[in-house]
Amino acid sequence: MTVHILTIGDELLIGQVIDTNSAHMAQMLHEIGAKVIGKSAVADSREDILEALAQTSKKASAVLITGGLGPTKDDITKKVLAEYFGVGFVFHQPTLEWLNKLYERFDRVMTDSVRDQCLVPQNATVLPNKMGSAPGMWFEEKGKVFVSMPGVPFEMAYLMEHEVLPRLRHHFAASPTAYRTLLTAGEGESYIAKILADFEEKMPSSLKLAYLPRIGQVRLRLTAAGTDEQALLKLLNEKFNEMVSLLPPELIAGYEDDLLESAIGKLLKEKNLTLSTAESCTGGYLAHLITSVPGASAYFTGSVVSYSNEVKMNQLHVRKETLQEHGAVSEQTVREMVAGVLDLLKTDVAIAISGIAGPDGGTAEKPVGTVWIAAGNGSAIETRMLKLGKDRMRNIQYSAIHALNMLRLFMRRHY
Amino acid sequence: MTVHILTIGDELLIGQVIDTNSAHMAQMLHEIGAKVIGKSAVADSREDILEALAQTSKKASAVLITGGLGPTKDDITKKVLAEYFGVGFVFHQPTLEWLNKLYERFDRVMTDSVRDQCLVPQNATVLPNKMGSAPGMWFEEKGKVFVSMPGVPFEMAYLMEHEVLPRLRHHFAASPTAYRTLLTAGEGESYIAKILADFEEKMPSSLKLAYLPRIGQVRLRLTAAGTDEQALLKLLNEKFNEMVSLLPPELIAGYEDDLLESAIGKLLKEKNLTLSTAESCTGGYLAHLITSVPGASAYFTGSVVSYSNEVKMNQLHVRKETLQEHGAVSEQTVREMVAGVLDLLKTDVAIAISGIAGPDGGTAEKPVGTVWIAAGNGSAIETRMLKLGKDRMRNIQYSAIHALNMLRLFMRRHY
Repeated sequence: MTVHILTIGDELLIGQVIDTNSAHMAQMLHEIGAKVIGKSAVADSREDILEALAQTSKKASAVLITGGLGPTKDDITKKVLAEYFGVGFVFHQPTLEWLNKLYERFDRVMTDSVRDQCLVPQNATVLPNKMGSAPGMWFEEKGKVFVSMPGVPFEMAYLMEHEVLPRLRHHFAASPTAYRTLLTAGEGESYIAKILADFEEKMPSSLKLAYLPRIGQVRLRLTAAGTDEQALLKLLNEKFNEMVSLLPPELIAGYEDDLLESAIGKLLKEKNLTLSTAESCTGGYLAHLITSVPGASAYFTGSVVSYSNEVKMNQLHVRKETLQEHGAVSEQTVREMVAGVLDLLKTDVAIAISGIAGPDGGTAEKPVGTVWIAAGNGSAIETRMLKLGKDRMRNIQYSAIHALNMLRLFMRRHY
Repeated sequence: MTVHILTIGDELLIGQVIDTNSAHMAQMLHEIGAKVIGKSAVADSREDILEALAQTSKKASAVLITGGLGPTKDDITKKVLAEYFGVGFVFHQPTLEWLNKLYERFDRVMTDSVRDQCLVPQNATVLPNKMGSAPGMWFEEKGKVFVSMPGVPFEMAYLMEHEVLPRLRHHFAASPTAYRTLLTAGEGESYIAKILADFEEKMPSSLKLAYLPRIGQVRLRLTAAGTDEQALLKLLNEKFNEMVSLLPPELIAGYEDDLLESAIGKLLKEKNLTLSTAESCTGGYLAHLITSVPGASAYFTGSVVSYSNEVKMNQLHVRKETLQEHGAVSEQTVREMVAGVLDLLKTDVAIAISGIAGPDGGTAEKPVGTVWIAAGNGSAIETRMLKLGKDRMRNIQYSAIHALNMLRLFMRRHY
């Protein structure tokens, strides 16, 4: 199955919005074994959209479209699709019922332009959008598939996961494939690739290894394709276990859908431990990561985001002398922050972070990107200094992920 | 001048890399009045690149290409360009001199594959790349311009600014455009579109209005194009002000690049107020949004993420009776959380959130998605209940954004 990703919207062409959708879609498609052969962006223009539909569907077996489904005048995707297929519109009652519920819930009054979202091209299969008002639409025309989704990232992601990917799999009767994923943390892609070079070289051609890097993590996805599902699963598990055995055990952080935050949640539950955090430069992002996992309340009690020195002193009992002698970004400070939050929130383990996220606030001695992290419990605390770059958001994200990995390694050693 | 942006690289099609280059290029081009009529990404494949060059240059007067200029085997852009133009290669001596300097500086030995970067297609005008080893190249063919740049973001940005934009301006004698952006919060796209329907209808054809929705926010971008830059700016400002005056003032949250978190930062600074937060279900995300703004430490002291009831009682002094009688997700609890965090972190204003983010944990009386928010100061506290859906991440994000907007409205009324 070959796919072209088509994004529609003037905002993409004047650079006001960075297109994260198409990368996310490509990743999801890659994971089910679909091949993305091209991506393009066009303006909210009838001619450009018509031409793009014709052009892209020549080569790809499916064209996945995002954007231009809102209720305003510049959103013309639906109209142009109907024109392209040469069909009229029908009213889709279930969408109206969904919109009624949605508007009731938010206590808002539905306008006519919203009601227009219930009109869909005659040949559309409506894909219910539980995350928003504009439904997704699935079209089949001369052996090609066209899918239209809203451009709002989480609406697109919901529709891809729950509607589009299962239908694509089914429609193109993708020959049975199976995959398993390993989550590693602590080393980069090239380090791991070097270790696995020989394994990859000798791998049967029915297997494929993909490196899926994220900030501070690399996921390794092994995919097997074939006709005999039993044999394929056996081979996959065999080779997956071989791959795991080749890697340094401390790199292995989780399996399948795990990311560090969920892997750590499982570890805490398994060991029956509770966690709290004390954050300065990450400003709540570490707690956010931890609590993005459903059920985190079973092991996470809370965080003190001590952005000011007063909060560090008054809440976490970091000593004034420590801040004066060593500064807020220092090993001593994060040690005292861990001790303070363990005491305050009464948990078994804790993490603390203090750093200079940037873009300003650095000094010659402690430039922007200097971050101290501590992870520990009542009897041991481990610390580490990071020297990161100048990008604020990246520094926040990398520090939080690195801190989670430090906690994981701490628990490996102490529990 | 019309431009097509062509990015080359397998990594873009499997979603391994988010393409920030093309948005940055589009923005720079937009600012000099060039019209980006399309963007596309293709694999490191000879056929796909040849086809893309032919296709895109049919409509656009210039094709700006990034990627595929590195020294490894999969980097074939230069070779394919030479084939497309039907020319051979020449050795570019100044590039060798630059590479010698570069390698000396970093104390590295130049390999043959690096030396190959001095070979350029015969018809190329070399654009010196002071940020890296692969030079940019400018081609003119049958009245069309083709530019090839490395995909490394800061190398591309350097070449665009110092070489490509000046040459494009000169080559095409561009017509100017300008835009202004308004941030609104509190109502949806269709509500605003209804108010502005008449304004949009009567708008001169040289202006264009775009709706750019985000969670809990809608940005309105007005763009003007023309030949006389003075007249165009005058018209743009006139119409922008008219648009602002048509909207209910409480919807207007910021201008240009503002999002709620930065708009609130400006408001707090302007009124010389400090802020703290107390979060339960948002688990640190609210603090993260606030601290994603550079310089937030000027007004934000910190947050207590009180995920467990013990932390609500012990740190924020929410009364045990309140939790027993009304529950952790209640108006009374968020009122006491605001009062508690104001007292604890000694700030002028504070926000508190408590809710059921889901996917589990709901009851008949308080289903998943029930969220209570309070915003206030020492003398007044305003509260609101939200009834959201079942998606954990969306509930977290929407609650935090809604809370920021409540704080904005509270400050409008009380300061």
